[in-house]
Amino acid sequence: MKVYKRAILPIGFKANGVASGIKKFGKLDLALFFSEMPAKASCLFTTNTMQAAPVTVCKSNLNRSKYFRAIIANSGNANCFTSYAGIEDAKDCLEALAEGLSIKGKEALIASTGIIGKRLPLGKIRRAIPGLIAGLSREGIKKASSAILTTDTFTKQIFSRFVIGKRQVGIYAVAKGAGMIAPDMATMLCFIFTDANITQSALDKALKASVVDSFNCITVDGCMSTNDSVILLANSAAGNQLIKSGRNFKLFSFALRKVCTELAKLIVRDAEGASKFIQIHVNKAASFKEARKIALNIANSNLVKTAIYGEDPNFGRIVASVGATGIKVKQEDLKMSVSSLKKKDIYVKVTLNRGRRQAIVYTSDLTPEYIKINAQYN
Amino acid sequence: MKVYKRAILPIGFKANGVASGIKKFGKLDLALFFSEMPAKASCLFTTNTMQAAPVTVCKSNLNRSKYFRAIIANSGNANCFTSYAGIEDAKDCLEALAEGLSIKGKEALIASTGIIGKRLPLGKIRRAIPGLIAGLSREGIKKASSAILTTDTFTKQIFSRFVIGKRQVGIYAVAKGAGMIAPDMATMLCFIFTDANITQSALDKALKASVVDSFNCITVDGCMSTNDSVILLANSAAGNQLIKSGRNFKLFSFALRKVCTELAKLIVRDAEGASKFIQIHVNKAASFKEARKIALNIANSNLVKTAIYGEDPNFGRIVASVGATGIKVKQEDLKMSVSSLKKKDIYVKVTLNRGRRQAIVYTSDLTPEYIKINAQYN
Repeated sequence: MKVYKRAILPIGFKANGVASGIKKFGKLDLALFFSEMPAKASCLFTTNTMQAAPVTVCKSNLNRSKYFRAIIANSGNANCFTSYAGIEDAKDCLEALAEGLSIKGKEALIASTGIIGKRLPLGKIRRAIPGLIAGLSREGIKKASSAILTTDTFTKQIFSRFVIGKRQVGIYAVAKGAGMIAPDMATMLCFIFTDANITQSALDKALKASVVDSFNCITVDGCMSTNDSVILLANSAAGNQLIKSGRNFKLFSFALRKVCTELAKLIVRDAEGASKFIQIHVNKAASFKEARKIALNIANSNLVKTAIYGEDPNFGRIVASVGATGIKVKQEDLKMSVSSLKKKDIYVKVTLNRGRRQAIVYTSDLTPEYIKINAQYN
Repeated sequence: MKVYKRAILPIGFKANGVASGIKKFGKLDLALFFSEMPAKASCLFTTNTMQAAPVTVCKSNLNRSKYFRAIIANSGNANCFTSYAGIEDAKDCLEALAEGLSIKGKEALIASTGIIGKRLPLGKIRRAIPGLIAGLSREGIKKASSAILTTDTFTKQIFSRFVIGKRQVGIYAVAKGAGMIAPDMATMLCFIFTDANITQSALDKALKASVVDSFNCITVDGCMSTNDSVILLANSAAGNQLIKSGRNFKLFSFALRKVCTELAKLIVRDAEGASKFIQIHVNKAASFKEARKIALNIANSNLVKTAIYGEDPNFGRIVASVGATGIKVKQEDLKMSVSSLKKKDIYVKVTLNRGRRQAIVYTSDLTPEYIKINAQYN
């Protein structure tokens, strides 16, 4: 298996990105991902109860159709807390897209990211759709990957290639991250494309397993977004023997998990205002859940984050974060080590002596730059 | 009932504060509170499982004795994560104090605040105890209230006076706050003294009721401390008819609650680096617990806190915080208003349309100054 940080779409996929005018200054803000053949979809969405309109519409379409052809995604406007009108806006958007692509509206999915509480500028999107479709190409993924960004400073994408039988299979994933990043279903937009031939149940199983220790193990600010979506399309174009279970399923799952983990780390590396990339490794826990809970509580502690920003070792704040979870770790069992704080990459190891499970959570530090970015977002 | 922000001890109490050398530059760091007659005690401690040695020792003494005469408290060192040795240090401290005061060791309580993971400088404390005792006086409360501070910029104290029967009764409370402030039992040190004559069960009931919407409804940074303690001593010196239940209990409870609420607000006003005092009022909730959970989640959102710091109205971040609790508020039922962000005091009102309960949580904004203070704490 090979893994690259590159924009390579698997067979049968095309993409494009344009500036529709949702964002100012002619910035790319509207992306389209297209599969030439019907693709199975597997999706995971935010657990935030204030879910955005595109999440509602995706869930509805996933119930109405078994195969999908396209995903349209915009940045600059989250289409959230926009009431029933927002849902109609998302549906209208998909209808306009379906007409242009000569597919059915229920065969397309939609995602949005940006400011909450404002209506989508539907006119602008409608006017942009013909050009968006006309420009679809394999190379268009570069523009598409830029068009989904908000405060991100770089595009985040991972491509993996591996062999099933005698066929090459590819998985490409692209994400936007930056802020309002806290786990419990990937707190960002992520689109994954594979040309693998795989059953629906195997696809769902592989995706669920892949987010557990990737997107659900990262946090920037502990703030869960209303729009988080991971959408995975599999179009079978690789022509491999159908993946169901066994060795081939393991291979596909391993590759998908690797892609998700690397992408999750890229999101943390580009966290708003971050000056450090922090890996928190909790081991000898009674369960993965327990290890993850403690790691996340350390990762979300403003006091731990500021201490690391200040390169000021402060074990006490880690101790307090462990205890604040309510998990009854004995003080005499708790061991900690922190790598040199002078470096950009920080490794925090916490040992509990309660069992054999572990979890790794990735996070960033809390800096004056994070405050600057978020004090003037509008 | 009258309430003052002043240092007035009820009858029969004395106090003092000295510089023992735990802190540098001759800063006051050791406080003693003393009751001339045996006092009933009611205490609440942190729910953090990594509790500090003084918390462990207080719990033990509360089981061993029914009456108490003294509280010793130091700042600059939390005596937490110091293993069995830390517990012995706290006990030795109490023994030295008891000897000087000619009382029993089990009749004294202890509290510490400051850096976690370092042993108490026991020699310095022992040497300071004779002077600490010799200087006990009613006016000594001014020095005592300063000696418990860490990054606080002012002393926090509230005095309330009211009449039970024909006797005047007083309640005085003093606290340290500033950072590592998150609720679930008062996240700070707070000492409360009353000359009321009251039964043990009425005292306990009044204290528990008072912290629910005072200390347990404030948050600075969502970080729960290991040392939080509220210690209330009642020495009966007012000579009032014994308070058990009924009208007199209500009067005492009301006064205690008022004292706790005002003190809790003072803690938030002096939050580390804060430029705003924020009141988050969630109403029309199904229960107080639900209202408090939502209010706290809004209050602990770095995105909400930075938006208020930046005077940048961003309702979307409040919406996302409400939904992130998992409580199924309908989008069409959620109403929000925020007072002018240009002022120092901000009022956020959130209406859920789910019932008739409410909660008010007090918090501060997140500023570059908070980061500066906490990046260089050691």
